[in-house]
Amino acid sequence: MKLSILGCYSATPRIIAHTTSQVLETRGHLFLIDCGEGTQVELRRHKIKFNQIKHVFISHLHGDHYFGLIGLISTFRLLTRETDLHIYGPKGLKEIITLQLKLSNSWTNFKLIFHELSSKESELIFEDDKVSVHTIPLDHRVYTNGFIFKEKPFERKLDIEKAKALNIDKAYFRKLKQGADVVNEDDEVIENSAVTLDGKQPKSYAFCSDTAYKEDIVPILKDVDVLYHESTFLEDHEHLCVKTKHSTAKQAATIALKANAKHLILGHYSTRYGGLEGFKSEAETVFSDVLLAEDGKTFTF
Amino acid sequence: MKLSILGCYSATPRIIAHTTSQVLETRGHLFLIDCGEGTQVELRRHKIKFNQIKHVFISHLHGDHYFGLIGLISTFRLLTRETDLHIYGPKGLKEIITLQLKLSNSWTNFKLIFHELSSKESELIFEDDKVSVHTIPLDHRVYTNGFIFKEKPFERKLDIEKAKALNIDKAYFRKLKQGADVVNEDDEVIENSAVTLDGKQPKSYAFCSDTAYKEDIVPILKDVDVLYHESTFLEDHEHLCVKTKHSTAKQAATIALKANAKHLILGHYSTRYGGLEGFKSEAETVFSDVLLAEDGKTFTF
Repeated sequence: MKLSILGCYSATPRIIAHTTSQVLETRGHLFLIDCGEGTQVELRRHKIKFNQIKHVFISHLHGDHYFGLIGLISTFRLLTRETDLHIYGPKGLKEIITLQLKLSNSWTNFKLIFHELSSKESELIFEDDKVSVHTIPLDHRVYTNGFIFKEKPFERKLDIEKAKALNIDKAYFRKLKQGADVVNEDDEVIENSAVTLDGKQPKSYAFCSDTAYKEDIVPILKDVDVLYHESTFLEDHEHLCVKTKHSTAKQAATIALKANAKHLILGHYSTRYGGLEGFKSEAETVFSDVLLAEDGKTFTF
Repeated sequence: MKLSILGCYSATPRIIAHTTSQVLETRGHLFLIDCGEGTQVELRRHKIKFNQIKHVFISHLHGDHYFGLIGLISTFRLLTRETDLHIYGPKGLKEIITLQLKLSNSWTNFKLIFHELSSKESELIFEDDKVSVHTIPLDHRVYTNGFIFKEKPFERKLDIEKAKALNIDKAYFRKLKQGADVVNEDDEVIENSAVTLDGKQPKSYAFCSDTAYKEDIVPILKDVDVLYHESTFLEDHEHLCVKTKHSTAKQAATIALKANAKHLILGHYSTRYGGLEGFKSEAETVFSDVLLAEDGKTFTF
């Protein structure tokens, strides 16, 4: 999995602080997660082949998470895109986008397929043979979901020489990679484990922004490889978290700890603090593997 | 008048090519004209005190002219603005903005006053004692207006020494500046011209984008000081102008010539051409005083 942070600041876009947007590359997919104003320019800046994005996930309808979506759709149209675009986001998003397309008399040549979310329970919203995506219901001032992306098991690694030595017909190799036992040319059952090894370890990534501290999400996040959890404030401003339904760095780390995440990425920083080191050190008092999102930064895991 | 070009390219925002937005500073007003995606960041970049903007003029509902408006309004809200904001633009704009505010549960603390336009005739849409603004009905794929900003006459320059010598009471000085004749202490009528000179010359600025070549607008533009007229294409691509309802540089110059404008500023360039010089040289075959808009450029007149 490769995660590109296009923007990781809260509230309002500034010259050097972009609002939330990320691209997750996994198993041939380019998933766009949130789309603050100016995201299309950041996609260009970071040389992401954004016409390959087929699925956009919008956490909630605060502007710093979606105001760039209509512009991206318009640009896809101008680039004569024909591929379907799936958009997953809160109920209402379809109305916003289609109203603007209607009033500009600019219907797209590609299908815009809206998957409007309204459930308060975690649900499966995307699945193919390689990846699944579930929602993570969050606690914010408006209806909000995080998203957890899970790779499905990779194929097993086949020891071809061993398979040949055991007189297995080539026609069975695919079955072996998929984990099945097979029968060889001598009519003997060959157990899968005799000729294969575990494949690459599938990874998982969870995006949780924006949200107040919400322990209910821990079971959904259980053992996630990488958790991005918002940390708008530091502990000194915990009172603001209550009012605005955001989290502190420490709260983000507590969720990571309880969920047994391998790595925690912090983001959605308020720009009130001079730098980002305070977020890291605060989170590290609770959880050891803390990374800082920064605009333009890429994480590979 | 001081005109700041925030963006002057057509279609879609890129790293170094912003879509349409300008700020006109005149007689204490800061008028925002169009507001493509990312305009709020450009306002910051060019250090424009954008909280002083009270009037926003939107030409039409193509995204490259207004997708930045909802973000600007949201930022005004986060900056705890309390001053009314007047928005002049096509019917439908109010629905787009209020739908987004409603769905984000983010009503503003300041009044948003929409002046929705639907007339096909030029109309007066703003007036105070210093400036008037009229629409310029344009010819584009959707309902579009340009805007002409006219300064009202400045006060006359009073020769105070002469006025004292003619025994005029100080109480009449304001009347004299406003152009009236007065009676002095000796009961003699003093003609205004005896003690005043013409004040500063009032200026006018017209913004025309987007539009096909439309000669009907010439009378509205008559003798304008500065005309900004779109020139999306060069003459080689005149066939595209017909299809997309845009203008060539030559057509823009022809309008400037017929309207007896003092200066022409070209803009709304397609990014298909290597540079901008071709636009200038083409326009100069018809009209002599041609200026090129560029992102971040300021014109004072």
